[in-house]
Amino acid sequence: MKVTLIAATKLDPEIRTLGMDLDPECDSPADDLAEFAGRACYQSFRKPNPATRKNVDYLRHIIESSHFSVLEHASATFYIEGVSRSLTHELIRHRHLSYSQLSQRFVNEEDAEFVVPPALEADEGYLRGVMENAVDSYRGLVRLLTKDGLPRKQAREAARAVLPNMTETKIVATGNHRAWREVIARRADPSADAEIQLLVKELLRQLKEIAPNTYGDMTED
Amino acid sequence: MKVTLIAATKLDPEIRTLGMDLDPECDSPADDLAEFAGRACYQSFRKPNPATRKNVDYLRHIIESSHFSVLEHASATFYIEGVSRSLTHELIRHRHLSYSQLSQRFVNEEDAEFVVPPALEADEGYLRGVMENAVDSYRGLVRLLTKDGLPRKQAREAARAVLPNMTETKIVATGNHRAWREVIARRADPSADAEIQLLVKELLRQLKEIAPNTYGDMTED
Amino acid sequence: MKVTLIAATKLDPEIRTLGMDLDPECDSPADDLAEFAGRACYQSFRKPNPATRKNVDYLRHIIESSHFSVLEHASATFYIEGVSRSLTHELIRHRHLSYSQLSQRFVNEEDAEFVVPPALEADEGYLRGVMENAVDSYRGLVRLLTKDGLPRKQAREAARAVLPNMTETKIVATGNHRAWREVIARRADPSADAEIQLLVKELLRQLKEIAPNTYGDMTED
Amino acid sequence: MKVTLIAATKLDPEIRTLGMDLDPECDSPADDLAEFAGRACYQSFRKPNPATRKNVDYLRHIIESSHFSVLEHASATFYIEGVSRSLTHELIRHRHLSYSQLSQRFVNEEDAEFVVPPALEADEGYLRGVMENAVDSYRGLVRLLTKDGLPRKQAREAARAVLPNMTETKIVATGNHRAWREVIARRADPSADAEIQLLVKELLRQLKEIAPNTYGDMTED
Repeated sequence: MKVTLIAATKLDPEIRTLGMDLDPECDSPADDLAEFAGRACYQSFRKPNPATRKNVDYLRHIIESSHFSVLEHASATFYIEGVSRSLTHELIRHRHLSYSQLSQRFVNEEDAEFVVPPALEADEGYLRGVMENAVDSYRGLVRLLTKDGLPRKQAREAARAVLPNMTETKIVATGNHRAWREVIARRADPSADAEIQLLVKELLRQLKEIAPNTYGDMTED
Repeated sequence: MKVTLIAATKLDPEIRTLGMDLDPECDSPADDLAEFAGRACYQSFRKPNPATRKNVDYLRHIIESSHFSVLEHASATFYIEGVSRSLTHELIRHRHLSYSQLSQRFVNEEDAEFVVPPALEADEGYLRGVMENAVDSYRGLVRLLTKDGLPRKQAREAARAVLPNMTETKIVATGNHRAWREVIARRADPSADAEIQLLVKELLRQLKEIAPNTYGDMTED
Repeated sequence: MKVTLIAATKLDPEIRTLGMDLDPECDSPADDLAEFAGRACYQSFRKPNPATRKNVDYLRHIIESSHFSVLEHASATFYIEGVSRSLTHELIRHRHLSYSQLSQRFVNEEDAEFVVPPALEADEGYLRGVMENAVDSYRGLVRLLTKDGLPRKQAREAARAVLPNMTETKIVATGNHRAWREVIARRADPSADAEIQLLVKELLRQLKEIAPNTYGDMTED
Repeated sequence: MKVTLIAATKLDPEIRTLGMDLDPECDSPADDLAEFAGRACYQSFRKPNPATRKNVDYLRHIIESSHFSVLEHASATFYIEGVSRSLTHELIRHRHLSYSQLSQRFVNEEDAEFVVPPALEADEGYLRGVMENAVDSYRGLVRLLTKDGLPRKQAREAARAVLPNMTETKIVATGNHRAWREVIARRADPSADAEIQLLVKELLRQLKEIAPNTYGDMTED
């Protein structure tokens, strides 16, 4: 599994002309933007309240009072590789995120990799055999269908029928921080799928780097 | 593939107390409700305009003017069986619908059926062999993991790694009519996946029975 | 404030062919449909577990385990009259519902009513005077603009500028039960707007009539 | 009306490690990210097709083929001031965006400004009088209610009943580029509200600066 942050929200310098003194101790655009949005609701840019003068305190208060909508303005985009189609079939149920995923209808899956579920790490060799058989079937079906005159895309679309859930896929996933928080809260739970637990723990680790106060209440365990 | 309409929006008799004369020629609650919603926007319950006095004409005008939001009030729920996991992985990208799907983490897939892609109808026998091998692997892995002490659910979760895309799944899918229209428009296109084209054509056929005017501009070809 | 249930999800008789014995003690289509959706996920139609054999117990378990997505299949539509534009400006922030609202751009507001905020009940007379002045201004501006040749719709659109927040509006609002639960939980809170608190309490009262188990954990206080 | 871009998606340098040669002629992170997402679906990072080698051509093709989901990854946030509550009541119907708006329940509106509808520019003086009367009423009601012992927030909440639609509001609005495109397409139409037409034209002008190819097919007239 490889999770790469490829894009995130940055502040435009114009924000400094609008009357809010950004907290000099905060160097997270996501955290700053959430505070700006919260203060816009109350027009409290001239921070009067010492208890929430610092960004870390302001966002702690936002989270404690469930004022999550201000966490929707900043977002982060990840390119996620080395995950299974089982995982993405679960992930994309989270409808507030945006996805662009490797299409098995278009892409030639002859050299597709596979992803070993955490509980089967000792059985990678066995799974490799299963995958090789599946890819052989896939290759044979594509050849058969294209020989019959079917366009390559439609041949691949049909032939993917034999590819297993563990087939590797790649996906670009974007979410605002309210949405990522929901995904993480739901999927870091011990009752969640083992592979997706690993994914969201890695996502949380990286998200805490770019928005520490937005995820201030969430820990990696 | 088996598509069963299991629920749909019905009018409450109270609606008759609110000042709109329902069109006696219309016996579709979905069509009536869309008209009611449209007339609520303009408070035109006392239908003055002969050109749109009939529900069929009113909804034709709604659709022509892209006033689609009034089609969001009525919905329909289908239980869809005999479709592949390839199909549901595509279907659930439509985020405005609601889904409840057979969970491969919970359900024992030892007796799972498979779905033949339209282009491979002549090869059902070959696919059956592929499926039997996959289910054998699945059964073996579940046995192995539970013998190692893993709870049944976690064993199935890991073992499903070897099940192919063509494994049959079942899904309850609910959408309002604006959402169903979008799914159908997008997936009835000849460039869409062959299996999902079949599904949305069947959905459209059934939806036209319960909401003919709401789908008045859409034909099954 | 007048809240009328105008439509709701009903089961199609076909659902009885699909292998689930509907609980004879349950006469709510919404509750039945939520159970059907939950059992579809686990393919547990042949209810083995006595602890959740009854619908009331099944849905209690669903809610306790936060499996809220199965509450998305059934929906309810209300026609809400006698509420202020302040209220609807807040209500429509709930993006999972669908709305069709009286358009102040199209509808002649010369005879618009007004809605007294709960805290100002003793001051209805004073507010009536404010409203009459506002409507006088509105009427004058419409006359002025149409005399200048502006189409009626554009004249009303401009003239509504002077109408106050308390101007009565009417709205058709549809939500699935997961969405209604969220609206109610958020807006029944004592920190919410006083008028919207009244609305959601009335909504909850009516929703509990059509889906008692779906709202089994929510009380009107 | 004042529209300030306060944040937007920027690429993380890590994206350069992932195998796609970013088009050197493109200096828009939003356009680059859309291309990256599109190429992830087809794994076409090693741009073979000369017809779409350039970002401008790639996104033109994306838009022509309605592959809009790849435009969802990059977003832009605006702080919008000097617009009316009429406008925001319409704007926030666009549910795919995120909003944080000045709260009339919390903020003291004694010094609220007002927004003149385009059709009434010649009547600003008259509207100023209407506004002053409204603010006088508001101030009186707040005083009355707080004297009666109501907390300030609840007094303001009730007193805002008399404030007109033209009362100025401020709103932070974030959307991905697919969502902004939909808002603009819908609200730039001559049949839309005159004030919101002005807003979306200004939004489009600024969005074209940061994502020219993403909006390549949309012109300001």
